[in-house]
Amino acid sequence: MKKVYLDHIASTPVDPKVFEAMLPYLKDKFGNPQSLHSVGQEALIAVEEAREKVAQLIGAKPEEIYFTSSGSESNNFAIKGFAQARRSIGNHIVLSAIEHQSVLHSAQNLEKMGYMVSFVPVDKWGWIDPQEVKKNLTKNTILVSIMLANGEVGTIEPIAEISQVCREQGILFHTDAVAAVGNIAVDVAELGIDALSLAGNQFYGPKGTAALYIKRGARIVPFIDGGIQEKGRRAGTENVAGIVGLGKAAEIAKQKLEQRIQKVKPLRDSLIQGLPQKVEHVRLTGHPERRLPHHASFCIEFVEGEAMLLNLDMQGISASSGSACTSRALKASHVLLAMGIDHALAQGSLVFSLIEDTNREDVDYLLEVFPPIIERLRNMSPLYTKYLEEKGK
Amino acid sequence: MKKVYLDHIASTPVDPKVFEAMLPYLKDKFGNPQSLHSVGQEALIAVEEAREKVAQLIGAKPEEIYFTSSGSESNNFAIKGFAQARRSIGNHIVLSAIEHQSVLHSAQNLEKMGYMVSFVPVDKWGWIDPQEVKKNLTKNTILVSIMLANGEVGTIEPIAEISQVCREQGILFHTDAVAAVGNIAVDVAELGIDALSLAGNQFYGPKGTAALYIKRGARIVPFIDGGIQEKGRRAGTENVAGIVGLGKAAEIAKQKLEQRIQKVKPLRDSLIQGLPQKVEHVRLTGHPERRLPHHASFCIEFVEGEAMLLNLDMQGISASSGSACTSRALKASHVLLAMGIDHALAQGSLVFSLIEDTNREDVDYLLEVFPPIIERLRNMSPLYTKYLEEKGK
Repeated sequence: MKKVYLDHIASTPVDPKVFEAMLPYLKDKFGNPQSLHSVGQEALIAVEEAREKVAQLIGAKPEEIYFTSSGSESNNFAIKGFAQARRSIGNHIVLSAIEHQSVLHSAQNLEKMGYMVSFVPVDKWGWIDPQEVKKNLTKNTILVSIMLANGEVGTIEPIAEISQVCREQGILFHTDAVAAVGNIAVDVAELGIDALSLAGNQFYGPKGTAALYIKRGARIVPFIDGGIQEKGRRAGTENVAGIVGLGKAAEIAKQKLEQRIQKVKPLRDSLIQGLPQKVEHVRLTGHPERRLPHHASFCIEFVEGEAMLLNLDMQGISASSGSACTSRALKASHVLLAMGIDHALAQGSLVFSLIEDTNREDVDYLLEVFPPIIERLRNMSPLYTKYLEEKGK
Repeated sequence: MKKVYLDHIASTPVDPKVFEAMLPYLKDKFGNPQSLHSVGQEALIAVEEAREKVAQLIGAKPEEIYFTSSGSESNNFAIKGFAQARRSIGNHIVLSAIEHQSVLHSAQNLEKMGYMVSFVPVDKWGWIDPQEVKKNLTKNTILVSIMLANGEVGTIEPIAEISQVCREQGILFHTDAVAAVGNIAVDVAELGIDALSLAGNQFYGPKGTAALYIKRGARIVPFIDGGIQEKGRRAGTENVAGIVGLGKAAEIAKQKLEQRIQKVKPLRDSLIQGLPQKVEHVRLTGHPERRLPHHASFCIEFVEGEAMLLNLDMQGISASSGSACTSRALKASHVLLAMGIDHALAQGSLVFSLIEDTNREDVDYLLEVFPPIIERLRNMSPLYTKYLEEKGK
């Protein structure tokens, strides 16, 4: 059976060159970077080279990169660490309504400790108006965290404008750029931000490796207390092989970014145009233009996301119904609900996210097998039957 | 030049079978375990199989194993998570004076939030008397954390007795078993404990993978907030390859534990006996019998740890002067100071920790090159000159 992987947002494959770069650190070069002997030194050098490559991908300085184990950890580190460090200044945190669960739940945890959280609304495209952010800022606001791009609907937010609003009032700004870094150009100086989360498995690096960019001078409370790794801000023996893989993935992403975008974008556009032509009652979710180049997301009326995924999987196609981090919870996405999509329609969420190996045949195959799947599922749907009856057919 | 790696406590090499087991998950099997399609399912099964193997190594149930990214993270998770979950019951935490920095600093962080921390003293061998633990328990004590074995001096603590003291008073007991698991037999039921930290890179697994055992029913506040991974207690996309490696390492450790112990113990004993015979003013640190089978640690008078390490490294020998997590801080070890060793002598700390590939030739080589190194270093030491003068030579 043909295999078509269209679930970039859950995880990309590992680039073969990334894999090759990691191998020595799972074999002979097994030293602990903190060891003072040459076996340790060799590992330390590898970690620092990777730090440089990750820094270069986002226009940061190497000493501003802190390695973590996932985008979720980076987000927890940023939200909790900055909130704790700035507690004497204020207790108010501003988020958007469509942040990732790791941002939302970190803030909820802080609420139990006396912090206050406000949510900036989004428009029907999941787009955040910088002026809406401004409205939410108070004298007590110590931190704003707004994502760079949303993994569920693909919308890219106006981060430079939002960060400027924060900067004008001396408020720290963090962006969850996990879905964006490595897939679109990201430069921390151009964006004018204080902190940024990224994850390797979103751009052909290994799972289990991620980073938090912290602008020099920004105070933060350590997330993992212990030894002196990551300048004492994130203790624990370094995942050397993973970090080397992340570094290599960053290096390749910097080189191939434009090429990757040019490859996936027209294919993505074929999906965005083709799917609603082939199937009735399909709506694009997220912004029609300002969206991730590999990202096509829809709500399909009268069918449930999970049923579509399983039927697509039986045809060899891997897709998702939203964030992998919550997929097994099978709840309607808070992102879609915040965009004003009703609960029933939100259940029909479907995301196709392309990888660099995706080709024209893959897209054609999807467009071929998808309509009969939907037809079959709709024929089993009481809601659809009712709709047809009401329509008088 | 001959290469002799005697720094097990900093990190072991990765077992070739562990490496082989990991490879598919860095290549074709790249799915996100939370994805609902078969590519994700395949990764999920691998993670759950690894969970079972880790559970089997320590006599736990699979659902009691939570994967983390390092022993330090596991310790942070346990100390902070249990303290937060039990805040309404009390605010007092009891540790030993020789815990790892990740335990100590987690507790220090909690002190800022209104918790109280007491430290149980150790004897000259770094051994903890269960009665001393008992003396420190109060009505407000909510958590006791005492390590199973100390990585710097090798001493194995009487955990079953200590946990019983805690159980009698309904106090939760956690043990940092990072240096122990995979190297000596560890069974959570026999030990009667509520939580245990372990790390893969201490028994031939990859760096960046570790676990926290949490006894069923024990309440804990999540460490990384976000998605539903690890039953919502530790969010973030799973490091699938690393977890598979940890599982394989656990499986092998269970099979080969006795064999590994029988191999390293006599070699370790040769070091413990041979070194003080070959060099004057050498003292064993840690307990002479109740110690990790691969662990030989000393204080060498009139020389500094760092100088010894660099000179040994020039002869191809990798060793350590204590915990890798603090080695670059170059401070006297809090473990040795707690054992009553004076500051000057503590600076001469040296740890040889054997790996399963260590052989008789390696030990003989060390015993051959070590005495001239020490002689040369002592001849440069003003303290040693003074000592000789005072001795009247």
